Amino acid sequence: MKSNEKNLMQKTADDIIQYIIDHNMKPGDKVPTEPELSKLLNAGRSTIREAMRTLATRNIVEVRQGSGTYISNKMGMIEDPFGLFFIDDKAKLMRDLMNLRIQVEPDIAAMAATNATKEDLDNIKTCLDDIELLIYTKQDFTEADNRFHQAIANSTNNLVSPRLIPLFSTVSRYIKEEDQETADCLIASHREIYDAIASKDPVSAKDCMYLHLVQTRRLLCKK
Amino acid sequence: MKSNEKNLMQKTADDIIQYIIDHNMKPGDKVPTEPELSKLLNAGRSTIREAMRTLATRNIVEVRQGSGTYISNKMGMIEDPFGLFFIDDKAKLMRDLMNLRIQVEPDIAAMAATNATKEDLDNIKTCLDDIELLIYTKQDFTEADNRFHQAIANSTNNLVSPRLIPLFSTVSRYIKEEDQETADCLIASHREIYDAIASKDPVSAKDCMYLHLVQTRRLLCKK
Repeated sequence: MKSNEKNLMQKTADDIIQYIIDHNMKPGDKVPTEPELSKLLNAGRSTIREAMRTLATRNIVEVRQGSGTYISNKMGMIEDPFGLFFIDDKAKLMRDLMNLRIQVEPDIAAMAATNATKEDLDNIKTCLDDIELLIYTKQDFTEADNRFHQAIANSTNNLVSPRLIPLFSTVSRYIKEEDQETADCLIASHREIYDAIASKDPVSAKDCMYLHLVQTRRLLCKK
Repeated sequence: MKSNEKNLMQKTADDIIQYIIDHNMKPGDKVPTEPELSKLLNAGRSTIREAMRTLATRNIVEVRQGSGTYISNKMGMIEDPFGLFFIDDKAKLMRDLMNLRIQVEPDIAAMAATNATKEDLDNIKTCLDDIELLIYTKQDFTEADNRFHQAIANSTNNLVSPRLIPLFSTVSRYIKEEDQETADCLIASHREIYDAIASKDPVSAKDCMYLHLVQTRRLLCKK
């Protein structure tokens, strides 16, 4: 692909994004077909096709075979948005992510305590119950743990905070198998966070999240 | 592109990423050619070409006309990694970004005060001087301000924190034209941050960044 072709494709991709914004399109909405977009944006069909591929790569749209192209549920969030795979020193990356998490997530818990709706609390509680069951039955609770932290961030009424959590979720898979004492401690600290948020107590929610993450950091450092 | 073709392309893109990691390739390093990768990864050339386009879209590689394909200096960080353009309510987005920034950047300043090298301090100082000159001559200092906050985050010795700053940089373009009093205040508060970091005083650096951002939030809210 030549440079001017790339620029045209990029411009067309931007035009499609603007079309999506102007028409207030939401995840699941169907995007106009290639011929339609070609007319609407006054661009060649091969350029439209290239541009749509770029948008699919960026998780802005998704192609459903035999049905058409739709706004993606991933809403433009890509895996590894910060290109962390480029970082060689994975052990340091884990520590640095954990340190960042400790700076950010206590405030997220406090915001959740202030803003969580009944539905938000139900979502957090479901994740909490899943975590406890998995710990009791000695199964991997990583995925449920990620959902727990995500559900809390989703309750903040802050538009950006929830988008940070997938960045952190790489940390928790490093704590899988623990002794009984650690398991009990993890169960208790998750429950405390939930209780503080459900009580609409931002100061306590912040403290509990801080303690929980510091415990997690200690577990990570033991290894 | 059919679904199985897409999966093959995606797998090949992942294989290329793994190749980049395994060979410890750095920004500016030349990536093997299409025929070479085709042999190395046992994949068709058209699949390699599609996969490389995906990696270019993700700013992992960049094509230099007539020269070849290189690891991108952007190191896999894409513009708008969190898909914020999807958010309708831009005014709330600005407030939420600002609130998040206030939760994160004071700790970043504290880490910078602890870890900044002589070279880091020189970089921060250059940005500070640029900001002051631009404010004195009543020019737009947005870009220099973004560089100032980036230079501080680059001094933390945390691998992830610097990658958050581009996310926040959309905020500052909303404060451009100010009265003389505001201009003096902005000059003073930037300088205080630099002085605290240069004095290796994390507590003061954290305070100064907090005050600076709260001032900025007040300016934003006036409008």
